[in-house]
Amino acid sequence: MPLKRFEALKPYQTETTSCKIKMSSNENPFDLSDSLKKKIIDNIAKVPFGRYPDPTSKRLKSIIAKRFGIKSDQIVLGNGSDELIQLLITISGNIKSQVMYPVPTFPMYQVASDVIGRPKLEIPLNEDFDLDSISISKEKLKNVGLAFFARPNNPTGNSFSLDKIKYVADQGIFTVIDEAYIDFANHEDCLSLALQNDNIVILRTLSKIGLAGIRLGILIAKSNIAHTIDATRMPFNITYPSQIIAETVLTDGAKEIDNQILTIKSERQRLLNELNKYSEVDVVPSNANFLFIKIKNGNMVHQKLIEHGILVRNMSKYASLNNFLRISIGTPEENTIFLEKFDIIYKDLSHFLLTPK
Amino acid sequence: MPLKRFEALKPYQTETTSCKIKMSSNENPFDLSDSLKKKIIDNIAKVPFGRYPDPTSKRLKSIIAKRFGIKSDQIVLGNGSDELIQLLITISGNIKSQVMYPVPTFPMYQVASDVIGRPKLEIPLNEDFDLDSISISKEKLKNVGLAFFARPNNPTGNSFSLDKIKYVADQGIFTVIDEAYIDFANHEDCLSLALQNDNIVILRTLSKIGLAGIRLGILIAKSNIAHTIDATRMPFNITYPSQIIAETVLTDGAKEIDNQILTIKSERQRLLNELNKYSEVDVVPSNANFLFIKIKNGNMVHQKLIEHGILVRNMSKYASLNNFLRISIGTPEENTIFLEKFDIIYKDLSHFLLTPK
Repeated sequence: MPLKRFEALKPYQTETTSCKIKMSSNENPFDLSDSLKKKIIDNIAKVPFGRYPDPTSKRLKSIIAKRFGIKSDQIVLGNGSDELIQLLITISGNIKSQVMYPVPTFPMYQVASDVIGRPKLEIPLNEDFDLDSISISKEKLKNVGLAFFARPNNPTGNSFSLDKIKYVADQGIFTVIDEAYIDFANHEDCLSLALQNDNIVILRTLSKIGLAGIRLGILIAKSNIAHTIDATRMPFNITYPSQIIAETVLTDGAKEIDNQILTIKSERQRLLNELNKYSEVDVVPSNANFLFIKIKNGNMVHQKLIEHGILVRNMSKYASLNNFLRISIGTPEENTIFLEKFDIIYKDLSHFLLTPK
Repeated sequence: MPLKRFEALKPYQTETTSCKIKMSSNENPFDLSDSLKKKIIDNIAKVPFGRYPDPTSKRLKSIIAKRFGIKSDQIVLGNGSDELIQLLITISGNIKSQVMYPVPTFPMYQVASDVIGRPKLEIPLNEDFDLDSISISKEKLKNVGLAFFARPNNPTGNSFSLDKIKYVADQGIFTVIDEAYIDFANHEDCLSLALQNDNIVILRTLSKIGLAGIRLGILIAKSNIAHTIDATRMPFNITYPSQIIAETVLTDGAKEIDNQILTIKSERQRLLNELNKYSEVDVVPSNANFLFIKIKNGNMVHQKLIEHGILVRNMSKYASLNNFLRISIGTPEENTIFLEKFDIIYKDLSHFLLTPK
């Protein structure tokens, strides 16, 4: 049986529960404005669907370059960061060397490594969900060929100490800093690090800032590195509609998106403040568009929220994350409803929640 | 340098020359009707761009299943066949076993094998551009883990003898029959073969029948095989707009597309008849939406066509295909212009063309 090695594959788990309020996938909860949608529609109407898209995404890359203050030839685009992650695991260094990443983190590093058949080195985070020196000692890293650091990290929401990431890169390991959530962070990005080093690349995405539906991942690297990676991707990986929609939103809609990001950040602060009032809730400080909280009887809270029409991500399926929930920031209205329902649930469950551990 | 093995990579060559009449990429030359575009636009307007697409493409798969007379769980969708080809090379059998394909053929089998770092076995086609028994002897196949057969073949346009493909599959080799051009063929497809064998899968695409811009590749296999392959693909690989557009075109636009296919087939016959009138032109009988012709001074003819605003594919960059051109069937109007211009060029170049070899 030629596909035998996949019989035990642990694939990426997608959320299938349907709720009125979806705070589970770290999406931008705001819809695009009607005027922006109108511009998208007008531009889509001109697309010759029968023709292949621009294999170089030239216009889109120049718009992205301008937004990030970089050059077009420092960019590689993917069908979501997922494709870029898969590509990096396929092409970087010796296929027999380990792919290293902290846990818990974005599951795609594990899934893609398993699909490609590359060995993994999972580094447990310390109790502050940060990297520590012992777990990334030279001895530990000796067979590592590629390292992924989501910064800010998903699902924990914090940002790893940069000196630890630099230490890994300094060992000559090809290092990917996945900045999917950087727009929501209260710290600097790592663009300049990538643009100064042959073995550091950055991942970005439009999925968290309003365009998860069109799947656009962005890799940023020095021109020579970007050029080599670009030559290995599939030639027509960005669809015609995705190019057109991204171009429209990142020009005509840039201000709208940026305002939404500001609202999400202030709403994050509001949710954090409110949740911190509950004695039995621990909230991890967040640089992302979600909050990572610990609450006793997390499974039950998750289920009760669903019964109230609110879907958050239950992290209890990961052994080390028992009783953790990941709550994507919603619109102000959604967050208000969430807080109301959460309060009801908390009080209902108080005999569980307040039982000494 | 962690990307060293790609310094000599021969990437997929995309066509960048721009001409008024594009007969170079085997696209459907017809634009969608205004009424169909209107339906697409209406449906696109409802897309919540900020949300991830359905990871299972449930509605689209059921529409495709109906069109092909199969079941949804026998389908895996890819971001173009390119992604499915790459995935199959990644997952099927031992990564050290050879990927086999005839040459000349669709270049993606070579490119994806090189990117993934898997050894290749290139089988030269015989002078009729068919497989012959010697080139696929048991001895030759002993290290092959995966075989690709484009049927009809690109760029030659003919269809390989099915018994030769069956012979390869009978050796237990995981066999991919890429039916990208099957809609234009005057012979049966191989769906039932795939649905009866664990080691045969079919590839289809919407790129040749009118939707190259949205990148939709379709893999068809027995349910158990499709299920395993589906678990290895990236979860959100089909964008939201692509799902919506494909759903619309394959329902409201199905008849329109099918009529275009009929026109392309009759136009192919017209072009074939006309080109056959030239003593110095050899036309390969075609089951695809293009003609593969041999003409002396092919490079010059290709260049002259560009000067007349017509782009066809010059195959001379491949050593064995010197003086071959691949001409995608255009709209009736485009084909008429092509024939007029070709006649002018042929007569201009007749002192070259008619020189004894």
